[in-house]
Amino acid sequence: MPGSAFRVLEILERAVTPISGETISNELGVTRSAVWKQIKELRQMGYDIQSSQKEGYNLVHTSNKLLPYEIHKKLHTQVIGRKIRYFEHTPSTNGVGKQICSEGDLKNLHGTVIIAEEQTGGVGRMGRAWISPAGGIWITIVLKPQVPVDHIFMITMAGSVAVARAIRKEFELGALIKWPNDIYIGNKKIGGLLLEMSAEADRVHYCLLGIGIDVNNPLKDFSAELQRDITSISAEVGHEVDRASFLARILREFENRFQLVESGEYDAITQEWKSLSATLEKHVQIRTLKNSFEGEAIDIDEFGALIVRKDNGKLERVIAGDCYQQ
Amino acid sequence: MPGSAFRVLEILERAVTPISGETISNELGVTRSAVWKQIKELRQMGYDIQSSQKEGYNLVHTSNKLLPYEIHKKLHTQVIGRKIRYFEHTPSTNGVGKQICSEGDLKNLHGTVIIAEEQTGGVGRMGRAWISPAGGIWITIVLKPQVPVDHIFMITMAGSVAVARAIRKEFELGALIKWPNDIYIGNKKIGGLLLEMSAEADRVHYCLLGIGIDVNNPLKDFSAELQRDITSISAEVGHEVDRASFLARILREFENRFQLVESGEYDAITQEWKSLSATLEKHVQIRTLKNSFEGEAIDIDEFGALIVRKDNGKLERVIAGDCYQQ
Repeated sequence: MPGSAFRVLEILERAVTPISGETISNELGVTRSAVWKQIKELRQMGYDIQSSQKEGYNLVHTSNKLLPYEIHKKLHTQVIGRKIRYFEHTPSTNGVGKQICSEGDLKNLHGTVIIAEEQTGGVGRMGRAWISPAGGIWITIVLKPQVPVDHIFMITMAGSVAVARAIRKEFELGALIKWPNDIYIGNKKIGGLLLEMSAEADRVHYCLLGIGIDVNNPLKDFSAELQRDITSISAEVGHEVDRASFLARILREFENRFQLVESGEYDAITQEWKSLSATLEKHVQIRTLKNSFEGEAIDIDEFGALIVRKDNGKLERVIAGDCYQQ
Repeated sequence: MPGSAFRVLEILERAVTPISGETISNELGVTRSAVWKQIKELRQMGYDIQSSQKEGYNLVHTSNKLLPYEIHKKLHTQVIGRKIRYFEHTPSTNGVGKQICSEGDLKNLHGTVIIAEEQTGGVGRMGRAWISPAGGIWITIVLKPQVPVDHIFMITMAGSVAVARAIRKEFELGALIKWPNDIYIGNKKIGGLLLEMSAEADRVHYCLLGIGIDVNNPLKDFSAELQRDITSISAEVGHEVDRASFLARILREFENRFQLVESGEYDAITQEWKSLSATLEKHVQIRTLKNSFEGEAIDIDEFGALIVRKDNGKLERVIAGDCYQQ
């Protein structure tokens, strides 16, 4: 956001009654036509600003976009989200993450959140397409984690727990986690996570935690087939919600749990994950690269692997694969 | 290599006696001045070609560079090294790997070997500098492996075994592997490996296996401190060696073992690794990100982790860290 439009916005936010262009121009020491230009910019950013010749300008409604300014007002984190890269459109926020990590100083990038109002080439697990229309939350958290490679999945689990908790706290909806990395409400999917990393065998260079959640985006834009299986926050609560507050909450919940992962307190993460699991104690069908089988999901271990008791009683440990459940 | 110089080279290689420029120009249907230009190109590539007005051209010695043409003559692999990217100088072959993998079709890149005569910014484990002067072998093998993320270290182990075996077979030197990824002859380091990957939590996009070996590069170019701790193939055998044959052997040994890793036959890899280990049954000092301790290295597991029995009898599993030993 241009600095001067931001200063006009602050004045409008403080004002309890409409405020004249002259008052704003005096306060900022700029011309009235500069004020008018900045009001126009703010409107383009989605701020609903009424104006009347008699009374002046009135901020009726804040922007419903995920603008860094709006998120920072509500953010209570130390690192995660303190830096934001914002895009109206981008093919994929994880793609942006790869690019900035290959070029930039990773220490400075740690905690950066990449936000897109809309992804034109969103990607899910296994390279599958992830439809990401305007109104959802499509972000990537850039991390340079102090976490061993073999425990990297703990970061996905921390993210899943953070998203489920944020949904529960903000909207009082009973969000659960479906192994490995999907968020469900009832039997409908509402979001998912995708962790990508660049690493040596024993050192992680950087991680990109992609998070996608259907929030205010209309479900009718999806295919009839998808509509049967997915839901959104607004569909569940019956009205549009404040995405900026929701995202700030997700980032805060994530930061708390990410610190646990970095401290090696994996047990705290797995315990909370289990308490939010939609998969444990369910009959599941597992498909891996090499085989497929059925059984009861009975546990996850400290690496995030699912433990399945097959019908013949044998235990299988699944670290990578698809999981289908009733 | 330009196609026409290559055809001249083939004629010179076939010839048992010197061959006149006229004969070559007739055979190829090009002018004698074109032949002369191509001879000049071959000499620039390191081919030692004598010429006399009376007798003609004579290939006295093949190039001592790691030219793709020379490697392909000796290569007995199906995939690894069938495609080669050759550089006189490059900052780092793993760096080239990252670039081509981010731009290209990974399926087509699988098995590509990137070769540099000299690396100007070579990198070892933990981001340490890796000095890579002309005369050594500095390569990266690009892989799109069908291997789960948690077993990715098996690829480094397969590479270590391949290098140690190739040194033993080509030069009859008693090469051993020091955990996690260095190659030693006696108590002197002769090479090392560095695996980097781009992955999701449960899917590897690509791997880059960097291999660096001191071969014909003069040790006197290293600092006095380094000279105490390292050796080279030529220092051990007393003369310069054929790097192209050696590299072709490494790639073949690696391909055999990489196939075992992809088949999940981890036990075959760890058994061979153990038989070549310089670390097992030794007293070691381990330094990880979080702590350091001493003990006896007693085993490695199927993930490549070192099992150390501490002086108090407790077993520690080390997946990431430095290992110092007498």
